[in-house]
Amino acid sequence: MARVLCITLNPALDLAFDLDTLVPGAVNRSQRAHLEAAGKGVNVARVLAGLGHDVSVSGFLGADNDAPFRRAFEQLGVRDGFVRVPGETRINAKLAEASGRVTDINGPGIAISSDTLAAFKRQTNEALEGSDAPDAVLIAGSLPPGMALADFSALLKRLKARHVPLWVDTSGEALRAAIDIAPAALKPNEVELSDWAGKTLDSHAKRLDAVNRLHQAGVANAMLSAGADGVLWASQMGVWQASPPRVEAVNTVCAGDTFVAGMLHGQLMGHSPETTLRFATALSAEAVRHVGVGDPNAPDFTQLLHATHLQRLDAESAKGTTP
Amino acid sequence: MARVLCITLNPALDLAFDLDTLVPGAVNRSQRAHLEAAGKGVNVARVLAGLGHDVSVSGFLGADNDAPFRRAFEQLGVRDGFVRVPGETRINAKLAEASGRVTDINGPGIAISSDTLAAFKRQTNEALEGSDAPDAVLIAGSLPPGMALADFSALLKRLKARHVPLWVDTSGEALRAAIDIAPAALKPNEVELSDWAGKTLDSHAKRLDAVNRLHQAGVANAMLSAGADGVLWASQMGVWQASPPRVEAVNTVCAGDTFVAGMLHGQLMGHSPETTLRFATALSAEAVRHVGVGDPNAPDFTQLLHATHLQRLDAESAKGTTP
Repeated sequence: MARVLCITLNPALDLAFDLDTLVPGAVNRSQRAHLEAAGKGVNVARVLAGLGHDVSVSGFLGADNDAPFRRAFEQLGVRDGFVRVPGETRINAKLAEASGRVTDINGPGIAISSDTLAAFKRQTNEALEGSDAPDAVLIAGSLPPGMALADFSALLKRLKARHVPLWVDTSGEALRAAIDIAPAALKPNEVELSDWAGKTLDSHAKRLDAVNRLHQAGVANAMLSAGADGVLWASQMGVWQASPPRVEAVNTVCAGDTFVAGMLHGQLMGHSPETTLRFATALSAEAVRHVGVGDPNAPDFTQLLHATHLQRLDAESAKGTTP
Repeated sequence: MARVLCITLNPALDLAFDLDTLVPGAVNRSQRAHLEAAGKGVNVARVLAGLGHDVSVSGFLGADNDAPFRRAFEQLGVRDGFVRVPGETRINAKLAEASGRVTDINGPGIAISSDTLAAFKRQTNEALEGSDAPDAVLIAGSLPPGMALADFSALLKRLKARHVPLWVDTSGEALRAAIDIAPAALKPNEVELSDWAGKTLDSHAKRLDAVNRLHQAGVANAMLSAGADGVLWASQMGVWQASPPRVEAVNTVCAGDTFVAGMLHGQLMGHSPETTLRFATALSAEAVRHVGVGDPNAPDFTQLLHATHLQRLDAESAKGTTP
């Protein structure tokens, strides 16, 4: 297995509520409320650690309420390299309705001082040196207040200069900064890719063109979760489309992070493009059936793999494949 | 000043978000997210302690995340008599929009075992004995999982048997159980009073009739927050209506608890009905202008008192009063 460093600059405790229907302006009572260490990089670390990789986690954590994170990292067996910051890590509310619709309420996060940023830089540099340096670095989520876009770009440049595959999953300005760095992988959503491409992605042809352009812009693995189109992935291994199996959607919160982790797993293991994409897509569908990340040990996971349809879209081959 | 015991059986940490507009199904970003010790009885204790009363707080608290409560009780100078329960006190999300609309998402709370309930009974009995027994007991909020309605009724009966004024602010089944005990004060909302009265309260006459019936059923102070009708209050001191001053509504979360605390304060101080109701109504309006309970030290509080209109509605006198 591989060594992976998962960086979450602006983590959160997720406070997940299950509601029949969210009624704005009313008192909504939930029979379940669950507080859990979260953040996109932490979710990816969960999946990768569960798959047996040697995972370190890093970023910034509030010192006053880090107990749920410490417990989670211990359970997962991941190395805790988070820099502690005075104060409390934000709590994000996730309101999941019976219909599968999720409403996110995200707080701003803890402001990062220049001293804290310097400490994080030193620690990251140390983590990237020596014989146990990671085989891949993933950096996911939003930027905390106080971290300028220039700091983020500089971090990405330093990471890329190490010649270790750099996977990035972020949004908005940070995503545009990441595209400029041309990392090993990006997975914008449809709205974000549309912003970058400068046109609405309202047809399969337009979505495909935008993913191809992102790949041609230097992103080795350009990925897009595209609703009815399933997943599109452009890399030097071809252009692929995956259609996930139909599942009963219960909670979609961790589906995207699970997909990214599954793709990174396939690449770290040297799996074929088909095996990699099929696994990531099926695992993401598995995640949608419950709260939390996807579980490859689900009793019917083999069925989910079989029910995931793949298609190669570029000239090389354009027919469907079965596992 | 007076000694007051404020009981909150199912407290919560309130996680308050400020949103421009809540968009269901989307990622909503809040520039402010604040976690604070809450629960209706804790809010009433805040107001009463701020007014100089000698306040004790009691009920059930999760041992694993009681730090915000300990900090708040220390700051307020209230005695912490909460029985600790293994686990975490629930976190309730309060989503306040720029329009003033508030959406509550409430978790179920910690389940209470029969042993914990027995410990609470012993402690409450001790608090009610001796020379420093409270001059009033307030019990507010919902029942925790595991506390049967019969346990709640038995608790109210024991408290009432001490001949100390018993103020209750709860809802649903617990409210109906409280009405049967005929406590010193109740403040149902319009929907709840309508349920009890068995008819919709869609006119001033019907609301007035329902409040009078609640008083005649043995509730010494029957109070109703009734939208356009302002506040209605029936007691042996007459039937009164208060119209609050117009304020810019920012956050209505603590308005009801502030009103109850203001009414209890007036009665404990032996103030006239006019002074009592005017103060409680103005303080509640003050609370609506910001997050948290009302502040009688607000620079314009005297103006708010003056702008609160009172009217006596029963035969004794039926004209408006000024302070």
